[in-house]
Amino acid sequence: MAGRVVTNIARADPAVIAGLAAAGVATVHEAQGRIGLLGSRLRPIYAGARIAGSAVTISSPPGDNWMLHVAIEQLQEGDILVLAPTSPCEDGYFGDLLATSAMARGCRGLVIDAGVRDVRDLTQMGFPVWSNAVFAQGTIKATLGSVNVAIVCAGAAIAAGDVIVADDDGVCVVKRVDAAAVLAAAQMREANEESKRQRLAAGELGLDIYDMRGKLAALGLTYE
Amino acid sequence: MAGRVVTNIARADPAVIAGLAAAGVATVHEAQGRIGLLGSRLRPIYAGARIAGSAVTISSPPGDNWMLHVAIEQLQEGDILVLAPTSPCEDGYFGDLLATSAMARGCRGLVIDAGVRDVRDLTQMGFPVWSNAVFAQGTIKATLGSVNVAIVCAGAAIAAGDVIVADDDGVCVVKRVDAAAVLAAAQMREANEESKRQRLAAGELGLDIYDMRGKLAALGLTYE
Amino acid sequence: MAGRVVTNIARADPAVIAGLAAAGVATVHEAQGRIGLLGSRLRPIYAGARIAGSAVTISSPPGDNWMLHVAIEQLQEGDILVLAPTSPCEDGYFGDLLATSAMARGCRGLVIDAGVRDVRDLTQMGFPVWSNAVFAQGTIKATLGSVNVAIVCAGAAIAAGDVIVADDDGVCVVKRVDAAAVLAAAQMREANEESKRQRLAAGELGLDIYDMRGKLAALGLTYE
Amino acid sequence: MAGRVVTNIARADPAVIAGLAAAGVATVHEAQGRIGLLGSRLRPIYAGARIAGSAVTISSPPGDNWMLHVAIEQLQEGDILVLAPTSPCEDGYFGDLLATSAMARGCRGLVIDAGVRDVRDLTQMGFPVWSNAVFAQGTIKATLGSVNVAIVCAGAAIAAGDVIVADDDGVCVVKRVDAAAVLAAAQMREANEESKRQRLAAGELGLDIYDMRGKLAALGLTYE
Amino acid sequence: MAGRVVTNIARADPAVIAGLAAAGVATVHEAQGRIGLLGSRLRPIYAGARIAGSAVTISSPPGDNWMLHVAIEQLQEGDILVLAPTSPCEDGYFGDLLATSAMARGCRGLVIDAGVRDVRDLTQMGFPVWSNAVFAQGTIKATLGSVNVAIVCAGAAIAAGDVIVADDDGVCVVKRVDAAAVLAAAQMREANEESKRQRLAAGELGLDIYDMRGKLAALGLTYE
Amino acid sequence: MAGRVVTNIARADPAVIAGLAAAGVATVHEAQGRIGLLGSRLRPIYAGARIAGSAVTISSPPGDNWMLHVAIEQLQEGDILVLAPTSPCEDGYFGDLLATSAMARGCRGLVIDAGVRDVRDLTQMGFPVWSNAVFAQGTIKATLGSVNVAIVCAGAAIAAGDVIVADDDGVCVVKRVDAAAVLAAAQMREANEESKRQRLAAGELGLDIYDMRGKLAALGLTYE
Repeated sequence: MAGRVVTNIARADPAVIAGLAAAGVATVHEAQGRIGLLGSRLRPIYAGARIAGSAVTISSPPGDNWMLHVAIEQLQEGDILVLAPTSPCEDGYFGDLLATSAMARGCRGLVIDAGVRDVRDLTQMGFPVWSNAVFAQGTIKATLGSVNVAIVCAGAAIAAGDVIVADDDGVCVVKRVDAAAVLAAAQMREANEESKRQRLAAGELGLDIYDMRGKLAALGLTYE
Repeated sequence: MAGRVVTNIARADPAVIAGLAAAGVATVHEAQGRIGLLGSRLRPIYAGARIAGSAVTISSPPGDNWMLHVAIEQLQEGDILVLAPTSPCEDGYFGDLLATSAMARGCRGLVIDAGVRDVRDLTQMGFPVWSNAVFAQGTIKATLGSVNVAIVCAGAAIAAGDVIVADDDGVCVVKRVDAAAVLAAAQMREANEESKRQRLAAGELGLDIYDMRGKLAALGLTYE
Repeated sequence: MAGRVVTNIARADPAVIAGLAAAGVATVHEAQGRIGLLGSRLRPIYAGARIAGSAVTISSPPGDNWMLHVAIEQLQEGDILVLAPTSPCEDGYFGDLLATSAMARGCRGLVIDAGVRDVRDLTQMGFPVWSNAVFAQGTIKATLGSVNVAIVCAGAAIAAGDVIVADDDGVCVVKRVDAAAVLAAAQMREANEESKRQRLAAGELGLDIYDMRGKLAALGLTYE
Repeated sequence: MAGRVVTNIARADPAVIAGLAAAGVATVHEAQGRIGLLGSRLRPIYAGARIAGSAVTISSPPGDNWMLHVAIEQLQEGDILVLAPTSPCEDGYFGDLLATSAMARGCRGLVIDAGVRDVRDLTQMGFPVWSNAVFAQGTIKATLGSVNVAIVCAGAAIAAGDVIVADDDGVCVVKRVDAAAVLAAAQMREANEESKRQRLAAGELGLDIYDMRGKLAALGLTYE
Repeated sequence: MAGRVVTNIARADPAVIAGLAAAGVATVHEAQGRIGLLGSRLRPIYAGARIAGSAVTISSPPGDNWMLHVAIEQLQEGDILVLAPTSPCEDGYFGDLLATSAMARGCRGLVIDAGVRDVRDLTQMGFPVWSNAVFAQGTIKATLGSVNVAIVCAGAAIAAGDVIVADDDGVCVVKRVDAAAVLAAAQMREANEESKRQRLAAGELGLDIYDMRGKLAALGLTYE
Repeated sequence: MAGRVVTNIARADPAVIAGLAAAGVATVHEAQGRIGLLGSRLRPIYAGARIAGSAVTISSPPGDNWMLHVAIEQLQEGDILVLAPTSPCEDGYFGDLLATSAMARGCRGLVIDAGVRDVRDLTQMGFPVWSNAVFAQGTIKATLGSVNVAIVCAGAAIAAGDVIVADDDGVCVVKRVDAAAVLAAAQMREANEESKRQRLAAGELGLDIYDMRGKLAALGLTYE
């Protein structure tokens, strides 16, 4: 069932995507009801990147990065490569040459439930990667996978064209059709948080701001 | 048995605490006889922080951060929050809003055998955290835990008011009543190390400085 | 069978070693046919170091760093210490005092399938370490191991005098007798990559540069 | 978005399900093109069980088993409960009382990416479970999840009504609409394997049966 | 601070201990408010054992089993050995000779956050062990630890004389002074469960027996 | 450098191999000075097997089991297959068809630092396997590896023809040239242990049998 490349995928509104990037993973994840988070084993290769983009998905055999070459042809400005191997793997699928090629196509980063290498070069190039390992072990080009099919990456179901948000807190996927609504919810959440932040910074307690004392007492909390 | 908040805990002498911070985790841990180290799965969210403070302890259900709000009210200047979930968990219990509130109360940092999020913000705020994961997965507020009770955090038994020392090497707990004695031992150790460091830098060998050659030969070490 | 120190080991040509350092782990690993990589659990304590040197190997009991003192006497300018415990261990075998001593002997770094501590000091000193943990737990000096014997470190077989290459991508070993040939292959690979990099940066696709389209079609890849 | 129970799900043909159970996980997984396998962290609590059934899916908060009670009402004869927590968890969601209830409803087993307890009782009852842990840590009943929604369990996407096959090799999901075709492929595969088994048992080599010698030689395999 | 052996420890009433063994880990853990469970990494070397006894505690250096010999002298009829290494370790501290000695002293089993070996012999002898690994790697006898001091084993704080309950679900500790009360609560819980079991076996639903429907509806659970 | 098959390997004396099997892993490992143990992640698929045999070694790409077919042709009566993938992998390389073929050639078992499947069939056939996973994920046949070359398997260096000993405690390798000497040491150890076992069973303490009391007191052990 491998061997398919879907070439014509729908993408979300670039302005919405930009808004989701600004909100960041933790806020977006809360705003859409705490769903869509990829597993914590995916970590950024350097601190400080915060991106969002449309997923170009890749399903690959373990230790075989051939489909990355196929996927790069499908990239459009603002896309993010998202690769899930078909069995657990930490081989280094991706390095500076593939990054050069992906950047030339407008790619904003890579999310991969496998390994990556050339991380010093990637850091200098400013090409962010979230991976489950840094590992110089190379891959082969022998077996077909698929591009822009539905995948499960680090425990999250992702369709081609879904919005990926990634920063130092990890990676979250937003369904393409939900993106605008999630952005609205995220922005409302941020506005609300800002006022809370000022009150908390002034020394008010969450116990009072969120009116928790009564509920805690009712459940039996005792102070000694 | 959850649902208790102890409000009146004893703390160690602030000058002793400052001394322990200056000595750092590795020295303090050696000075007290190699006990009290928390598991290596607790890692700092950014490099370079070195703190010590009095433990305000939190026992929390998995995936429920309600007790953090309760604990923040109990903070005094110079305290450190220490949270252990009642079963293994990597959810993100803590982010920038809670950090704002904790800092307003004089809190020096958080040690948590679970996850944390908003790490970019926390880094910019200079609020250090040692956690077992960075994970944007949020928590609920539904079930009671306890504050300032005895806990086991990452394998170490910690009582409220014990001194926590944390830096890039990890986290160590010093029993409150032992703090002054441990500081004295740490400072003696540091003085002793400084002279050793100079001799080693000059090219002398540990084999000679520590008089090891005879013991090694007696055990049968052979040179070929 | 422990208790041996081999004092007279052969080393590779310093110019070859310098060339391998410049090439880096990923290129060297590819150039020698994807062998010799140490496991991905070995990570650098700080980003950016890239070294190569001759292995002074250490086989140590778990939680016992005595043999490090013995090994330091065997160091020559440009060597790298490589330690494998005889059973899995993450104790902190090595800190700033041992680093001071090793640097005084010309040592370029440490590769250890166990823990390390004093990482803030080591970072300031510019002494790079690749370890499986950062852990302040100290070690004892009670039992013999061996120095400059054949070891297996993080899954790779290493003999004394083999060339170790280490950078942000991990650690790779090159057999001493293969070093010159591997360097030649690495440099050829780099030259070849440079031209590829320029074509990829200009927007050419790997699919075309590497002439993959026919093979993919033959295997049945379909575009939808 | 939690809080939904879908009550009217389609199921595959019982005869097809029985055929898939007879084929077992490894054969079914091969027959459908090596997709649909759940992660190897799911292990049976006792050896020898081999079942197939229709998935009644459960999405649950970490450490909260309330939705299992809701799901049991939705069970029909021949169903299998499949639970995925919304963040990683090994708490013991399920024990002998829930198993008693599920068996009374015709349930064939439980697949859970979390913990289970009372395993001695479950073994005596003959109720098979595939879980990521055996852990007596109990759960609460405080927060809503959903039943019969699409979930990702141990890395595999599962819809309510999909066919679950589980045995000592692990757990595999077959899309409901593909079940009959996969069964046909599995049975063809088994027939083919039986003749191979007899030839191999007689001492013939796979190298000859599968006609591999030429391909290996062409790739450069050398005998020394 | 190592090097202490406490020889005169208090133990719980043997009848209470027997009652706790009969109740088993999951029931005891629930009965005392879901505290005291050791980590799920401790697994029995064979299925079916269910024991309770008084803890003779051991704090040992990593890879050093000397204190087991010291602890065996402190055993009384009905005791359980509980060993925690001072840093993470999976070496095989214990085999059939030590088991022979411990059984001669009336020991009921071993709980160890490290490895064990000779598991085939131990199984034939009927000496149960809960360990974090099966590993033939031996240990040395070079450094002091302590016996019958307070330890943390697999995340649980244990004092000498506390009651250990262990079965296929794992290991739980009951504070000695709480043992009788916990037994009473466990027996009440079991009686209550028996009536629930019969109703559930007859097909009644937990939703009705536990009166959950109203609460679920109030939280917004919807059926589609 | 892959693509080599060494066809003419030396093997140890069958009587010596049989003796090592009788001694078992723990005794053999001690008898040869605590070296040669494979990592504890290798576990038997069923309890009770105890074998020894000559290693036919396999170095394979991740997820590719082609070389197993090549290796089976090299098997002689009494051999054991030992496979190490070139990067970490848990795919199921081996099932009942390959076992049928290997058994027809006199193979005694498989040791593999990867996954295995069809474990129910393998158990019924009495073909023992020690693996790092049970996983139904299949493999491909696309890339060359090597047979009867030196490998590192689960952390141990193994040459073709070395003696592998495997039982419920794990797997140990004995260098072919050391096999007779190790057997002699193992048998002496067993004889010595038998007398110790009888004294321990009679209630004598290791403290007295091994004359430990004086050494413990000299190190400062105190009884309270």
